[in-house]
Amino acid sequence: MSELRQNRATKRWVIVAGERARRPDDFKVKEVSKSLPAHDPLCPFCTGNEAKTPAEVLAMRVPGSSANSPGWQLRVVPNKFPALRPVGDLERREEHAFFRKMDGLGIHEVIIESPVHNENIATMTYRKVEQIMLTYRERYLHLGADTRFQQVTIFRNQGQRAGTSLVHPHSQLIATPIVPSNTRHLLEEAMRYYDDRGSCVFCDMIREELKAKKRVVLETMDFVVFEPYASRVPFETWIVPRRHNASFGNISPGEARKCARVLRRILGSMYQVLGDFDYNYMICTAPFKDANESYYHWHISILPRLTTQAGFELGSGIYITSAFPEDTAKYLAQSIGVGSRKK
Amino acid sequence: MSELRQNRATKRWVIVAGERARRPDDFKVKEVSKSLPAHDPLCPFCTGNEAKTPAEVLAMRVPGSSANSPGWQLRVVPNKFPALRPVGDLERREEHAFFRKMDGLGIHEVIIESPVHNENIATMTYRKVEQIMLTYRERYLHLGADTRFQQVTIFRNQGQRAGTSLVHPHSQLIATPIVPSNTRHLLEEAMRYYDDRGSCVFCDMIREELKAKKRVVLETMDFVVFEPYASRVPFETWIVPRRHNASFGNISPGEARKCARVLRRILGSMYQVLGDFDYNYMICTAPFKDANESYYHWHISILPRLTTQAGFELGSGIYITSAFPEDTAKYLAQSIGVGSRKK
Repeated sequence: MSELRQNRATKRWVIVAGERARRPDDFKVKEVSKSLPAHDPLCPFCTGNEAKTPAEVLAMRVPGSSANSPGWQLRVVPNKFPALRPVGDLERREEHAFFRKMDGLGIHEVIIESPVHNENIATMTYRKVEQIMLTYRERYLHLGADTRFQQVTIFRNQGQRAGTSLVHPHSQLIATPIVPSNTRHLLEEAMRYYDDRGSCVFCDMIREELKAKKRVVLETMDFVVFEPYASRVPFETWIVPRRHNASFGNISPGEARKCARVLRRILGSMYQVLGDFDYNYMICTAPFKDANESYYHWHISILPRLTTQAGFELGSGIYITSAFPEDTAKYLAQSIGVGSRKK
Repeated sequence: MSELRQNRATKRWVIVAGERARRPDDFKVKEVSKSLPAHDPLCPFCTGNEAKTPAEVLAMRVPGSSANSPGWQLRVVPNKFPALRPVGDLERREEHAFFRKMDGLGIHEVIIESPVHNENIATMTYRKVEQIMLTYRERYLHLGADTRFQQVTIFRNQGQRAGTSLVHPHSQLIATPIVPSNTRHLLEEAMRYYDDRGSCVFCDMIREELKAKKRVVLETMDFVVFEPYASRVPFETWIVPRRHNASFGNISPGEARKCARVLRRILGSMYQVLGDFDYNYMICTAPFKDANESYYHWHISILPRLTTQAGFELGSGIYITSAFPEDTAKYLAQSIGVGSRKK
């Protein structure tokens, strides 16, 4: 059974993943090799191995095919070793009046993006990426209806340096009964900015980035893609919708499709420039109850894992980056320009 | 020239390291191989290569040997590719009235811990580790006298997964003209706790850990070593002095020696248990001006890099850990017990 625990000094919550718990003597470094056949009979996410995952909660399938059998284009399944489970209650408990914890209550799902073992979202068809984004939206809305959850975090881990354990293309989502500390921090800062200026800091940021014209990689009618002024890592990239909107859950299916095309374009361009690079992306969105706030603004943050966070970053929270975002933005914009016929 | 830049939405500062800047087309993954001879003629930190580093600012040497030549046991040199330099001014600037930055003003030093290329702090003599800790203290006090700096972060990166680029044993310190966001966050939470309870959260934490007897790995007259209740990663370990004291700069040489012996014992024990594992440690201390606060408490935080932070951690700030600290603490305590004759 998992637990959510809070450090009383840092106020940071952690999930002690009971389902994944390893024995202390089992922490040896394992190398995951990147073997990439189109089908791997040992991969639990490959066609034919549907029984190796928990039963699907959603799937895009050819007509007539049965659930949990071949014939799918995309499957959503509960994580077999979930960090959180939808059991337990919301009560905070204090062990010995000092140590605070709560049940490891939540949802942890896997979005298997394709039946093809060696496919890469950076080179998938636009239509497939649209399906993935529409699936994110559908699961987000579905889980938002459960009042036990405050937030759904949707994320993707690509490659070993990004913390993935399975190479088969997939994303994940975790619904938590608490507002994560990073979200809380972003909300507080955005609220303070709004109280000072009367405007959304993200709306101001895209306006200023478009004015400065130094770090913008791509702009469409609906989205602005740029390397943030204070990028934490080389090639950090944000996709921000032009329209003010605090929550990913408020987007229409049409907006989800457009967002998918922008995501595919920028990842494709990064893939051209950086090769088969490791990265994480996260959909940063307001908690459900703050879905219509004036001060927050959902966005996607792509963090390439080209360098390693060391002790200074972990201790201070200040990142040292070895590239100017003006340079990486120019480089990416050129690469995107080359193939910009695709809409 | 480096720059300190602030993201207006997250308020996070980053250092864009001008001296280390790489071109956008230069981000290919390089593998650092762990070849470990006792002397490597190509290593800039090895004996005989003193000219390959900037001139030393401090060294422990055999009598009669000259600066920047062989005959040293430990050297402190400025980082050749510093993240920050002691030039520029403290003014915050706003580019286009939105983007905030300041000069990359600071100090970045390297403490070369030994002339022996393949030595490991986890297996060094106690006397050598004492020298290292005394050097931390000396440099900390020296840099604290410069009123341009708010904070000195002392840290160690061991191994490739911990972000080191040179295998020769060394620590680093960075003096910053700002209070890092992690320190600010810790201070704010500790102040709030103090305002509520009238006690230091770290003092309460060690008292409760000693009472609970579940996560304590080692206790001496002066220090308590434990796996925090909400450990972020497997084998996270904190070394906390029993005596309330906000700043590392307030410790006496005698306390520094005792701290060194505790650090050596716990690292030695982790090394026995985990093998040649990668880790970071950081000395978490109050900014200079808060050195005597009642609510903060300096400590050392050891973060083994046995697992990789993935998208969920980066997006939410909630860590998922795959070991219970009660289990890892018991395991480490047993290992320490075996060789506990050494003082």
